[in-house]
Amino acid sequence: MKQAFDLPLQPQRLLGWLEELATLGATPEGGVRRLAATDADKQGRDRLVAWMRALSLHVQVDRIGNLFGTLRGEQDAPALMIGSHIDSVANGGKLDGTYGVLAGLEIVASFVDAGIRPQRPITVAAFTNEEGARFQPDMLGSLVSVGGMDLETARNTRDAEGLTLGDELDRIGYSGTLECGAMTPACFLELHIEQGPVLEAEGLTLGAVEGVQGIHWTEVIFKGQANHAGTTPMHLRMDAGLAAARLNVEARAIAKRHAPGQVATVGTTVLRPGVVNVVPAQASMTVDLRNADRDELVAAQSELEAAVATIARDEGLTYEMRELVRFDPVVFDESLIAMVEDAARAIDRSVKRMVSGAGHDAQMFARVCPTAMIFVPSIAGVSHNPREATTPEDLEAGLLALAHVATRLSSV
Amino acid sequence: MKQAFDLPLQPQRLLGWLEELATLGATPEGGVRRLAATDADKQGRDRLVAWMRALSLHVQVDRIGNLFGTLRGEQDAPALMIGSHIDSVANGGKLDGTYGVLAGLEIVASFVDAGIRPQRPITVAAFTNEEGARFQPDMLGSLVSVGGMDLETARNTRDAEGLTLGDELDRIGYSGTLECGAMTPACFLELHIEQGPVLEAEGLTLGAVEGVQGIHWTEVIFKGQANHAGTTPMHLRMDAGLAAARLNVEARAIAKRHAPGQVATVGTTVLRPGVVNVVPAQASMTVDLRNADRDELVAAQSELEAAVATIARDEGLTYEMRELVRFDPVVFDESLIAMVEDAARAIDRSVKRMVSGAGHDAQMFARVCPTAMIFVPSIAGVSHNPREATTPEDLEAGLLALAHVATRLSSV
Repeated sequence: MKQAFDLPLQPQRLLGWLEELATLGATPEGGVRRLAATDADKQGRDRLVAWMRALSLHVQVDRIGNLFGTLRGEQDAPALMIGSHIDSVANGGKLDGTYGVLAGLEIVASFVDAGIRPQRPITVAAFTNEEGARFQPDMLGSLVSVGGMDLETARNTRDAEGLTLGDELDRIGYSGTLECGAMTPACFLELHIEQGPVLEAEGLTLGAVEGVQGIHWTEVIFKGQANHAGTTPMHLRMDAGLAAARLNVEARAIAKRHAPGQVATVGTTVLRPGVVNVVPAQASMTVDLRNADRDELVAAQSELEAAVATIARDEGLTYEMRELVRFDPVVFDESLIAMVEDAARAIDRSVKRMVSGAGHDAQMFARVCPTAMIFVPSIAGVSHNPREATTPEDLEAGLLALAHVATRLSSV
Repeated sequence: MKQAFDLPLQPQRLLGWLEELATLGATPEGGVRRLAATDADKQGRDRLVAWMRALSLHVQVDRIGNLFGTLRGEQDAPALMIGSHIDSVANGGKLDGTYGVLAGLEIVASFVDAGIRPQRPITVAAFTNEEGARFQPDMLGSLVSVGGMDLETARNTRDAEGLTLGDELDRIGYSGTLECGAMTPACFLELHIEQGPVLEAEGLTLGAVEGVQGIHWTEVIFKGQANHAGTTPMHLRMDAGLAAARLNVEARAIAKRHAPGQVATVGTTVLRPGVVNVVPAQASMTVDLRNADRDELVAAQSELEAAVATIARDEGLTYEMRELVRFDPVVFDESLIAMVEDAARAIDRSVKRMVSGAGHDAQMFARVCPTAMIFVPSIAGVSHNPREATTPEDLEAGLLALAHVATRLSSV
């Protein structure tokens, strides 16, 4: 069995595929708009299928449009799956998702080029609607694949214009016949750009992803009274805006108390009436808490809820509080995480264990099989943006590490 | 010379006039919409002029539409002026402004009823566009009257539809011939609802207004970077929204340091992009600082500006800061303030010295003659609202106090 460093990997071919795929749905400003189940998505899928067929892979599409290209193994065993997605956000970049799919394809291509077969089949997968930019929820295709959502619900999901995902998949010719879940693999790998600034900030090349942060989104509405900014003494105010400000400051304090794994973000705050000389009667805000450690996240959430009550009482306000989103953290497979670290050592690249702050298809497969992810740096931490970029050297490093782990996992 | 308690004041007549004037521009929900120089304003002015003529007052209108009704005095001396306004905000109440004008009229009427003349003339005045709801600035008529704005500039001021105040005054027949400023009085009194909650909260009946708060409005824009709420560790963020929250909290701290005279209000805050899972790249906000003491206000403003710089530096942000409005505090005449307190004692009503947090015509006259104001309680502190109200007992108390001071000032 060949090892990664023996495979005739062609990083330039991978870079070429990435550039070529980025021409499908390309935007004038250099980004990519390839929303799920649109014409641009069909073009991307068609191109990917053509590349798979050129490598004589066995191409299958399941009933929710997930696309699989399989290289047969010596043994008739469950496959190693390497997957991600090729749909993009409305104004995205060239690497998010596509890097993981095409790196898997490059590894398979190098097996083909070398004229050898892995022991275990290797399936390259591209999942439907990972971004959630057109249909909700995000990671929809992989969610259905692991049994987390039934097919009919998924097909009936509507975009902002009322079109269903099912009809749109029919229209572009990607409602397949394979039953969803039929492809449950032996293990799952996903290579992805970090989409954050950590690796770059620390001067590192690879991330051995331990898991995905759990997410709690809470909407808080403080209600006080609109009062004249001049005639109302401070002690007679019921200032909803000030309460929102205090909760924002407190959210950071909560993140610090649960450092370093906890993050807290107040992304929205709307004051009413929102007039210079009127004390705000109402403040609506959201708090996004994330942590890879479930206990820490639950503790942070209860501190947040206690702070809402305390601040409202202090300020003489009423409040409403509502959970918008709640996902538990995902923990990846320890032996696979260690293999990623081994791979980094073998190819002489720096690595750190880290958690993903964004959602990925891999987190769905973690429910059903040993799963891990590899991150490469995002320049300036930018993603979901035409400026999304990673250096060719880092893209190659990710490919080598993925190949290293893939050859080990496909040889058993 | 008759004293206030000797004048045959008819508080019921005053209440009747208030109700009658409120029918002109009445709204379905029980409020008043009598914007400056509209048809409703013309109706109100016509009614007021009719009442003045019925009392045989000498009616004059100046070139910016300020309306004066004068009761001759025994002496040909500068008048005591009692004034306020009859224009309203878009959805106002029955008392704001009208109470001060019609209480002046009631006092003059009681002189007429008693068949006596004051030593000094008494002029009842209603000033144009006090509210600033249709034309800016507010207190425009009294500002022009004291020479703070030239007539042509004032007449050329446009409303939101592009109509000029001058044309609108011509249209309703209230561009008078009296030169602006010709009516400079010996002293000026204004009776007004408090428009705040202080008197009610402290169980008091009258306010002896010492002056009007100075106002500083500052716009602050913090600029950071939009980042992913999951993948960006706390220490790598440039969170403009958090900076705005910190400044809001700091604004209250500044108010406390300069208590009790200082108020601070963050009425507006807008976050961009304003998405749940994105760290805000930009926060635009306003801070409204007010104090009756000029030195304290200047100190509070410099503390605010220092806080903006400190917070921006802490958070790794840039910022822009811009002065939107700056008015110095106004100090009323000490001997007139003392007369208001004397009046309260004489009529056996509780009184406290206080400052006005809202602007009034009286503050313009404080530039040119001894001036004072009397406040009566606003129920629940509400004004600029159809629910604006004061009890009949308190309205009567204000009338009696005003009459007490007016008889003293008109007797010399």
